[in-house]
Amino acid sequence: MRIVTLTTDFGTQDYYVGAMKGAMLAIAPNLQLVDLSHELPAHDVLAAAFVLRHAARPFPSDTIHLAVIDPGVGSARRPLVVFDQHHLWIGPDNGLFSFALEAPDCQVYAIENTALMGAQISYTFHGRDVFAPVAAHLAAGVPLDEVGPVVKDPVRLQAIRPQCDAHGIEGQIIHVDRFGNLVTNIAAEMLDGAVRICLGAEVVIEGVSQTYAEVAWGDTLALVGSAGMLEISVNGGSAARQLGLGREEQVRVQFERG
Amino acid sequence: MRIVTLTTDFGTQDYYVGAMKGAMLAIAPNLQLVDLSHELPAHDVLAAAFVLRHAARPFPSDTIHLAVIDPGVGSARRPLVVFDQHHLWIGPDNGLFSFALEAPDCQVYAIENTALMGAQISYTFHGRDVFAPVAAHLAAGVPLDEVGPVVKDPVRLQAIRPQCDAHGIEGQIIHVDRFGNLVTNIAAEMLDGAVRICLGAEVVIEGVSQTYAEVAWGDTLALVGSAGMLEISVNGGSAARQLGLGREEQVRVQFERG
Amino acid sequence: MRIVTLTTDFGTQDYYVGAMKGAMLAIAPNLQLVDLSHELPAHDVLAAAFVLRHAARPFPSDTIHLAVIDPGVGSARRPLVVFDQHHLWIGPDNGLFSFALEAPDCQVYAIENTALMGAQISYTFHGRDVFAPVAAHLAAGVPLDEVGPVVKDPVRLQAIRPQCDAHGIEGQIIHVDRFGNLVTNIAAEMLDGAVRICLGAEVVIEGVSQTYAEVAWGDTLALVGSAGMLEISVNGGSAARQLGLGREEQVRVQFERG
Repeated sequence: MRIVTLTTDFGTQDYYVGAMKGAMLAIAPNLQLVDLSHELPAHDVLAAAFVLRHAARPFPSDTIHLAVIDPGVGSARRPLVVFDQHHLWIGPDNGLFSFALEAPDCQVYAIENTALMGAQISYTFHGRDVFAPVAAHLAAGVPLDEVGPVVKDPVRLQAIRPQCDAHGIEGQIIHVDRFGNLVTNIAAEMLDGAVRICLGAEVVIEGVSQTYAEVAWGDTLALVGSAGMLEISVNGGSAARQLGLGREEQVRVQFERG
Repeated sequence: MRIVTLTTDFGTQDYYVGAMKGAMLAIAPNLQLVDLSHELPAHDVLAAAFVLRHAARPFPSDTIHLAVIDPGVGSARRPLVVFDQHHLWIGPDNGLFSFALEAPDCQVYAIENTALMGAQISYTFHGRDVFAPVAAHLAAGVPLDEVGPVVKDPVRLQAIRPQCDAHGIEGQIIHVDRFGNLVTNIAAEMLDGAVRICLGAEVVIEGVSQTYAEVAWGDTLALVGSAGMLEISVNGGSAARQLGLGREEQVRVQFERG
Repeated sequence: MRIVTLTTDFGTQDYYVGAMKGAMLAIAPNLQLVDLSHELPAHDVLAAAFVLRHAARPFPSDTIHLAVIDPGVGSARRPLVVFDQHHLWIGPDNGLFSFALEAPDCQVYAIENTALMGAQISYTFHGRDVFAPVAAHLAAGVPLDEVGPVVKDPVRLQAIRPQCDAHGIEGQIIHVDRFGNLVTNIAAEMLDGAVRICLGAEVVIEGVSQTYAEVAWGDTLALVGSAGMLEISVNGGSAARQLGLGREEQVRVQFERG
């Protein structure tokens, strides 16, 4: 039973997610369908890329990830299949798979084979009419290179990579979680020598903590979160609310030698 | 593995949806359960009928759709099973299955066989105590006509059918999606000769577009959405917010000969 | 195919729930995963204990319930497995399983066997790194007593038990559902002889109704809800909004002899 995950910004008050599931089960009725999230911020490709990456990471090999955050639906943006030698990723070519594309030997195909799509293709809902049928056909064993031609230049988001120099790192907030934690694009491995984190007009945090309990209740701290990324949090509270900061805010990490 | 979908207005902060799933799996542990939506507007049968129809449409034959939007629970409204020669539909007799009931040779039964229900029937939660057990028994192979007597007069919503004459169509908004698109009850097939769409006190749209890109960013347009119905949208924005219009708003389509 | 349910306060806009599912499927790919709720109020163990209990109740024997409402993550609170001779419960030792712990012959173990956990244990996300892997290993057949030592003193919430005397019952609101019904911790079996329910500064309800229809549209009533608990409702409306009352509000039931 092949696992197919679903990630969208469609919310769950509409027929969109249900119709995608139906379109897949009509082709491959024994799929193991797994919802990752349908509540991603509408049209926010960067937030979706981040959530998708960290939700997908623990899944077993050969899992198929269907992701439709697709502000360009109906335009010329390409529909893609990406294989990073571990998982398969299916969705629009807009940077959603930037993290998977970092893998060596990544294979990327543009979906062009209409035999693998729905009988009718609407202008506004390729999730149901293109991506879901292709995902189901691949789950059912159709070889990867039957979807269409190889793509050499898939879209990659620059924002997943912070700027580093000898003095520090210039990153940004790329996700705010339900608890108000501010997740940055700065990975734990980059933090050697970090002594100070600055963000917003006046927030300065000294050092990186290991646990919330290292600071007083209500105080702000920086720590490596469960995604392995630098996060700004408030012990027992919401950093987003308390600091009044959110997505795209710049974050500067200063090194001791800085 | 039989597919059973779930559609409710129960939200997901309560025990209701979980208890329905448990009640089914206790009878038929190998069901393929698929959530369509649990975020439908509370007690809004028309919105639910619409979402259910378009979410359900792509599913394979013999899928069972369990739908509980049930403002009349505890009153004399009948619990129904509907078979439209393609899918099975289980839920209250309040118009929720109006679209399925349009099919020729539709079979409709009232659920009366208490052997197929839960051991105790609460006054307020027939989703768990009546509809879920019946769905699971049918999934497990109980013949359709064992649920109870044939029903000749199931409730049908008039609002699914707009009024047409030689001059135009009088329809209405029956759904507002997450992106603020205003979905009408007017099907694509009815739009031949449409030259003008009027809604609210002062919105007049000339012609039906094929894609969002035919109008400027921020402009209002009419187009056929992925449900095959006339929708009013704003390119890059929310028509609901920008026009200040919503559910039950009248929509008039004028024909060229009108 | 073993059933594993998931209950969290993680919401569905983050990667948390998806990552937990992936961590389980990597160990046991054929699980039947069932979402109960991910929208529980953040860090509200009592509300979660209530929802979990009533969502879980109808599930078949040997269902595994994974529940992560875990305000103490990273502190010394123990990770637990509870077997109440019917279902298995996995999550933090903070009272979340208070209802299951009422069962006679309940077995409780502290999770200490690192061989059953993830390769890396983050400070903030034991759902993915501890609880999910243990749930999957148990689903795959690992014996219960391999998780760790027996626990004799698991945390139990006192709030699940109202105070009773000859004159009445002192209970409280422990859950507010989507429709604004105020669910108390007072079970139907305790209501024999109840003549009056008082809550807030001035709400007095005479008697316990059987159905909403016993009072006028818009009137307040007390009745036994589908959870088998006393609920305060408004016929056709939201008791929470109309009465301005919510969680932790005291509720007094007066007996006729009181």
